[in-house]
Amino acid sequence: MNANPKFLNATAELEADAIRPFPNSRKVYVTGSRPDLRVPFREISLSDTPSRQGAEKNPAVLVYDTSGPYTDPDAKIDIRAGLPDIRTPWIEARGDTEVLPGPTSQYGNQRKHDPALAGLRFIHTRAPRRAKAGRNVTQMHYARQGIITPEMEFVAIRENQRREGLSEMLLKQHPGQDFGASIPKVITPEFVRDEVARGRAIIPCNINHPELEPMIIGRNFLVKVNANIGNSALASSISEEVEKMVWAIRWGGDTVMDLSTGKNIHETREWIIRNSPVPIGTVPIYQALEKVDGKAEELTWEIFRDTLIEQAEQGVDYFTIHAGVRLQHIPLTAKRMTGIVSRGGSIMAKWCLAHHQESFLYTHFEEICEIMKAYDVSFSLGDGLRPGSIYDANDEAQFAELKTLGELTKIAWKHDVQVMIEGPGHVPMHMIKENMDMQLRYCHEAPFYTLGPLTTDIAPGYDHITSGIGAAMIGWYGCAMLCYVTPKEHLGLPDKEDVRVGIVTYKIAAHAADLAKGHPGAQIRDNALSKARFEFRWEDQFNLGLDPDKAREFHDATLPQEGAKQAHFCSMCGPHFCAMKITQDVRDYAKEKGISEEEAISVGLQEKAVEFVSKGSELYQKT
Amino acid sequence: MNANPKFLNATAELEADAIRPFPNSRKVYVTGSRPDLRVPFREISLSDTPSRQGAEKNPAVLVYDTSGPYTDPDAKIDIRAGLPDIRTPWIEARGDTEVLPGPTSQYGNQRKHDPALAGLRFIHTRAPRRAKAGRNVTQMHYARQGIITPEMEFVAIRENQRREGLSEMLLKQHPGQDFGASIPKVITPEFVRDEVARGRAIIPCNINHPELEPMIIGRNFLVKVNANIGNSALASSISEEVEKMVWAIRWGGDTVMDLSTGKNIHETREWIIRNSPVPIGTVPIYQALEKVDGKAEELTWEIFRDTLIEQAEQGVDYFTIHAGVRLQHIPLTAKRMTGIVSRGGSIMAKWCLAHHQESFLYTHFEEICEIMKAYDVSFSLGDGLRPGSIYDANDEAQFAELKTLGELTKIAWKHDVQVMIEGPGHVPMHMIKENMDMQLRYCHEAPFYTLGPLTTDIAPGYDHITSGIGAAMIGWYGCAMLCYVTPKEHLGLPDKEDVRVGIVTYKIAAHAADLAKGHPGAQIRDNALSKARFEFRWEDQFNLGLDPDKAREFHDATLPQEGAKQAHFCSMCGPHFCAMKITQDVRDYAKEKGISEEEAISVGLQEKAVEFVSKGSELYQKT
Repeated sequence: MNANPKFLNATAELEADAIRPFPNSRKVYVTGSRPDLRVPFREISLSDTPSRQGAEKNPAVLVYDTSGPYTDPDAKIDIRAGLPDIRTPWIEARGDTEVLPGPTSQYGNQRKHDPALAGLRFIHTRAPRRAKAGRNVTQMHYARQGIITPEMEFVAIRENQRREGLSEMLLKQHPGQDFGASIPKVITPEFVRDEVARGRAIIPCNINHPELEPMIIGRNFLVKVNANIGNSALASSISEEVEKMVWAIRWGGDTVMDLSTGKNIHETREWIIRNSPVPIGTVPIYQALEKVDGKAEELTWEIFRDTLIEQAEQGVDYFTIHAGVRLQHIPLTAKRMTGIVSRGGSIMAKWCLAHHQESFLYTHFEEICEIMKAYDVSFSLGDGLRPGSIYDANDEAQFAELKTLGELTKIAWKHDVQVMIEGPGHVPMHMIKENMDMQLRYCHEAPFYTLGPLTTDIAPGYDHITSGIGAAMIGWYGCAMLCYVTPKEHLGLPDKEDVRVGIVTYKIAAHAADLAKGHPGAQIRDNALSKARFEFRWEDQFNLGLDPDKAREFHDATLPQEGAKQAHFCSMCGPHFCAMKITQDVRDYAKEKGISEEEAISVGLQEKAVEFVSKGSELYQKT
Repeated sequence: MNANPKFLNATAELEADAIRPFPNSRKVYVTGSRPDLRVPFREISLSDTPSRQGAEKNPAVLVYDTSGPYTDPDAKIDIRAGLPDIRTPWIEARGDTEVLPGPTSQYGNQRKHDPALAGLRFIHTRAPRRAKAGRNVTQMHYARQGIITPEMEFVAIRENQRREGLSEMLLKQHPGQDFGASIPKVITPEFVRDEVARGRAIIPCNINHPELEPMIIGRNFLVKVNANIGNSALASSISEEVEKMVWAIRWGGDTVMDLSTGKNIHETREWIIRNSPVPIGTVPIYQALEKVDGKAEELTWEIFRDTLIEQAEQGVDYFTIHAGVRLQHIPLTAKRMTGIVSRGGSIMAKWCLAHHQESFLYTHFEEICEIMKAYDVSFSLGDGLRPGSIYDANDEAQFAELKTLGELTKIAWKHDVQVMIEGPGHVPMHMIKENMDMQLRYCHEAPFYTLGPLTTDIAPGYDHITSGIGAAMIGWYGCAMLCYVTPKEHLGLPDKEDVRVGIVTYKIAAHAADLAKGHPGAQIRDNALSKARFEFRWEDQFNLGLDPDKAREFHDATLPQEGAKQAHFCSMCGPHFCAMKITQDVRDYAKEKGISEEEAISVGLQEKAVEFVSKGSELYQKT
């Protein structure tokens, strides 16, 4: 192999902390209607409730698992070989695609045959696949034909994971209680098909990304989180980007956008896709701009078109395309506080001004659709005019573009191409709902995918939080996917720790939204964790959390001794002041006496009370 | 002095990072109607807009300042002497109080005369003050008499700080624009008086806390943030608690609750109050419980009463009192996931069960009011039955208690005692508004003061974020003060870094709420920061943020060179890809050509476009 030894060295092994299985967790697969349809989950085993609190088994909790084979100790991880190909049999069985002799893009060919790149190139790249002439291979197309694909069945199983376990137990413990949202209804493959056909959900899954574990984005499903990675001219290497992707999905990234703008974008992307079990999104205009040395006015439709094909044949699952930035919208940004803050938006604005012409993304939109449907690349229609400050929120420029995105959605749907719509940005809380309402109306309920929104501008260094607030709210209102923001937003490129914090923050926002929407079963994990907390099952409390390592680290900062993990108190209140402990004591007392708390009062057992006091309230020592 | 040398050593100097003035900031005082009424602000000076972007002066921004004299380089800080007494002349002028020869509580006396405590005791404690017989010294009482106190004038000036500066400049720059919330209306002393009289706002200011810089809590004012500090049996010393208080107000804590449960609570509290420019709250039942060796059932009204007087004479500004936990409510918690999670609530529940009697806090409520009004201690009516998990949110127990708190509010108001109401806890997003609506209805619009609420249970280690989401929302809906939650919540005691992160998170929530409510002038700081960001005034961007140190640290992680602070790009996108830079270029181009962007398009200047391109788009180099 010609590979650059430094590069190989760096990538031969992923860092141990990125692939270590989560504590007390194992990877399980639920098999669907065919043996090669295996849907991954993480099963978190729990300890028993201590006998003092009425010994009982606590059933394992299944959670949605984005981490792919990396957390499966049985999987052989070799990032030079890429992940196993799980979808090719499904794709081939449809008989509507053909394997090409090689890349059909000019640039893809050039890179393939450049000997200088041998050391960077991913070795095991397979030949690209494309729809046969006249065929349409999008999930939306199948859905509209009434076909339930394996991808649809996969996501139906995946969205249902929370049925098992705790809910049955809770029902048994508390007969007659109304558990509301925690008793799941079932998401069926037919429901998935219907939502995709309707355009209300998308399954981004390029036929050239067969390593993908399919997932769905739509407001009647779990709210998803996207993590951005990508090097800039100033920092980071290919190997670091693969690491970042693996790290991002470990913490719960449902999709990953590769926003690289530096050198070797093509090769970096190949390494990322071949190793990614989640959909990969890109902004093709970034690479097109590199091809014209950063001179926006030299961009052409031909260069852009070649870039789309290049990336589609590598397996990119969705493209951000800023086709809504029209010439006529640009003046609307003139009086803004912060002008145009989207990179793609500003590139296109510059092009339009320079040529005094309508954007080629807009004028060539139908041709773009033709490319997308030959590979099943989904649109993520970019919000090039999103507000970059509270001052600019919900202005005319923003909504003019949104309206255009709605028109483009209709065109894409005419081609059965899957579409989601990108949204802002910086929006104060009271203006968030208007964004969601307008998006649903203008864009015909195509899934919304927003960055934040940031609810104030005054906290650089904490914009994961300013935006996590807005993200949770818009998720509740109906946004289907939330693009994370890290603590380094506005200040620098995120490192691994920033990525982890950004994703966990957004998993919180997404889950809070699932709870608020009453998503079937969303509350099971909350309930299991709260029950563990109440019963002082510290390890279970850590392990059921979104970040078990951090929870354990924080606990151990005050009480590092192993014994403290069994303790019926914590460092916050100390042994004699714990409210949960006192409540337990009250319950234990009632139990021992064979009475419920309710009776203890309602039948007025004064003598019991006296007895309780006379025993000197030694309840604490009865363990 | 008999002081313990180790202790003195630790407290003689506060750590430099706690008292360092903020960068490019100076302390300014706005003088009111009397020369000793000096309201502090922090003035952040800004650099000029670079000439390339149309040179202009950027006026300094005044921000609300909770940090007290600690950030004033002219102030002499000696925590053994305490802060200057600013309110005694105001209190004395009212002629309704008398100075007592010494503490009138049994416990206060005992501690005062215990020679073993000499080393711990605050030396310069002044004699306590109390209302003359038959007089009522609460701000509510004065307000209802139509009297505008210096405290009311102080908060009126304080709430108005944002009038100056950026808004005028923005108006000048963008004539005819509608700036909405950024043009402040004025909060008058009369408005303050009226809100306090009505019970819709409180000014917690015990006559024994003359060091206090008055502040107001109510939903027609800026949303406030409380920070909890306090040692437990397991960790921390007196000096650390004073440090924590100074640290908490540095980052923006509007009030501080001392929740100490360890030894020497009385002395710790004295040190904290004498050094605190913000209101101090406590939960007196914690100390009362210490007095009976942690045996809840041995608590008595007499012990509790003595504790109230002890603390009132030290200067505690508000008491959390869980008088709404009635005997009849306890059975309502039996089927909860997490029972009673409030410490005060569980203590009282245990007492009620043990004695099978109604809570003495409830039965002696009028006597409590008599004590409160003699010192102007405000009620913070505790939510002892708040939900401790999503599962338990908005249940019957919680709302039954809330209704009781409403009844108690009426009783307190009969005595002209100021009241706020504590709220949950753990509540999913869709159930938050019901909390606010019920509180307003049941509690007659008394200010609401909530912990979070946490919007999901699944993220131990990140509960500042799960709760920051809920806090921002309930702040928008009308909550007047938000009790912070740190990352260590549920896991351990917060250290300094946790306190900083917790407060900044809650300042974000409070400010996001102020924006959403359209609080006069709230947006000025956002606008100033966004303008700085757009103009690449990096230092101004850092300094206008809630945590300048963190912003600078993050920026410098990628671009440490001093020159990068002048750079017209950052590490996120690199020099050729910055959207803000491209927008600037577009504007500059238009400016140079003497046309607005709008015209550049609308008059169809095709030739300009050609010229632009023919110049090779060398805009980047025209700095």
